[in-house]
Amino acid sequence: MASSEQIILIGAGNVGFHMGQALTKAGLKIHQVFSRSETKALRLASTINCSYSTSFEQISDEASVYILAVTDQAIPKVAKALASRLKGKKPLVVHTSGATPATVLEPCFERYGVFYPLQTFSVEQPVDFQKIPLLVFANRSADLEWLQQAGALITPLIYHIDDQQRKVLHIAAVMVNNFTNLLYSQAERLSKQHDFPFELLQPLIRETVQKIERHSPADMQTGPAIRGDEATINSHLDFLEKNYPDLKELYQLMTQLIRDTKN
Amino acid sequence: MASSEQIILIGAGNVGFHMGQALTKAGLKIHQVFSRSETKALRLASTINCSYSTSFEQISDEASVYILAVTDQAIPKVAKALASRLKGKKPLVVHTSGATPATVLEPCFERYGVFYPLQTFSVEQPVDFQKIPLLVFANRSADLEWLQQAGALITPLIYHIDDQQRKVLHIAAVMVNNFTNLLYSQAERLSKQHDFPFELLQPLIRETVQKIERHSPADMQTGPAIRGDEATINSHLDFLEKNYPDLKELYQLMTQLIRDTKN
Repeated sequence: MASSEQIILIGAGNVGFHMGQALTKAGLKIHQVFSRSETKALRLASTINCSYSTSFEQISDEASVYILAVTDQAIPKVAKALASRLKGKKPLVVHTSGATPATVLEPCFERYGVFYPLQTFSVEQPVDFQKIPLLVFANRSADLEWLQQAGALITPLIYHIDDQQRKVLHIAAVMVNNFTNLLYSQAERLSKQHDFPFELLQPLIRETVQKIERHSPADMQTGPAIRGDEATINSHLDFLEKNYPDLKELYQLMTQLIRDTKN
Repeated sequence: MASSEQIILIGAGNVGFHMGQALTKAGLKIHQVFSRSETKALRLASTINCSYSTSFEQISDEASVYILAVTDQAIPKVAKALASRLKGKKPLVVHTSGATPATVLEPCFERYGVFYPLQTFSVEQPVDFQKIPLLVFANRSADLEWLQQAGALITPLIYHIDDQQRKVLHIAAVMVNNFTNLLYSQAERLSKQHDFPFELLQPLIRETVQKIERHSPADMQTGPAIRGDEATINSHLDFLEKNYPDLKELYQLMTQLIRDTKN
């Protein structure tokens, strides 16, 4: 049973904090929390009522699952430090990163994997894990099964995704999250400089997203680019060239990409 | 009172169809519907129970407000035809376009304006006008007042927006609607070609939008570009160069724009 394993959570930042809470709420046993920051370690440990440590020497080597919820950059170093602490033991070690292949753990551990919740987190905002897809992977099928079972306790949205797929998925996530947010913030900039409220655009933004919950976005493309409305496109480009040269290139490139989808 | 005026609706396409219904539901009197297509004219006229015509000679010259819900390209020609039909009369004439200045009507009419619902419409999909911002403008203040009053009967979201603002707003709308939809459809393309379901990204897409309903998007930027995570950026660019060269330039440009917002 998934809930009989002893788990140690390494990292108590945005992801670690919410994952620790979700796992505990689901009945899984977090044995210990590790963070170099005592404030963060204590904040999480006190919330989920477990012990914590701030140095690797104090990390228990008795657990059966170690979850590395640390930054992408820190994963190799933390893995190494953990491996030397676990000498001889063979627990399952997973990281929670979308940008890092599972194989980064291979040199350190016999049993490794990924337990990656696809969402943006911040400690201040409550999270409903039931709505967050969890992308799991393990190099051994029994471990994959355990990750799927444990994951199923916190969300119904479990996907088995390998390193290559997760990389592409991360690029897609950057596009639909980071890049769309940039478009929103540029639209906000235009609204501020021309004295209309940004919230005027909110219904359109909402509708754009609601449409693609029912239809393929490829079928939902509207606007001057797909219509081939050169007069509007040229008038927009003229305006951007004079007033927002940094946005002109973006407008041109996006317009071209939309045109290309027509063919 | 706004509801005592006789309105004629010219155009029975996506915008005309929904606007005719909304105005009628709100108690305003549509006297006549015009469309060159008898099918479209009849479809709307029978829904809102008014007369229709398919030739300019049959358009009544007795109404006090004419709404041109025709394509951007058709506005000047339709305005000219209408003006010659209305010889000597001085009704208020407005168009419903986001991309067209009000002044395009100036050569034809003494009293002119804009009545522009900021949303994407299709005849098949029901529309809740209460959630659609309506951007109004008129060259005379009494007419502006009437447009605001009439608009208030169909939506609480009324904004007084001049030609220059509406142009910028249209560019912003293209960015948050057409361009984000392109990003969604490119993400869908990646998902199909790498065998993971596009709906995996839906919770992230939804969260991105929900965040900016409470916060400024400029404060909500996350991801490798704003973090300065060169390793991830380079690995994404490498992958795109080899597999999706058309998306590499987009990724680069977006990343640069996000970096620039930091300064």
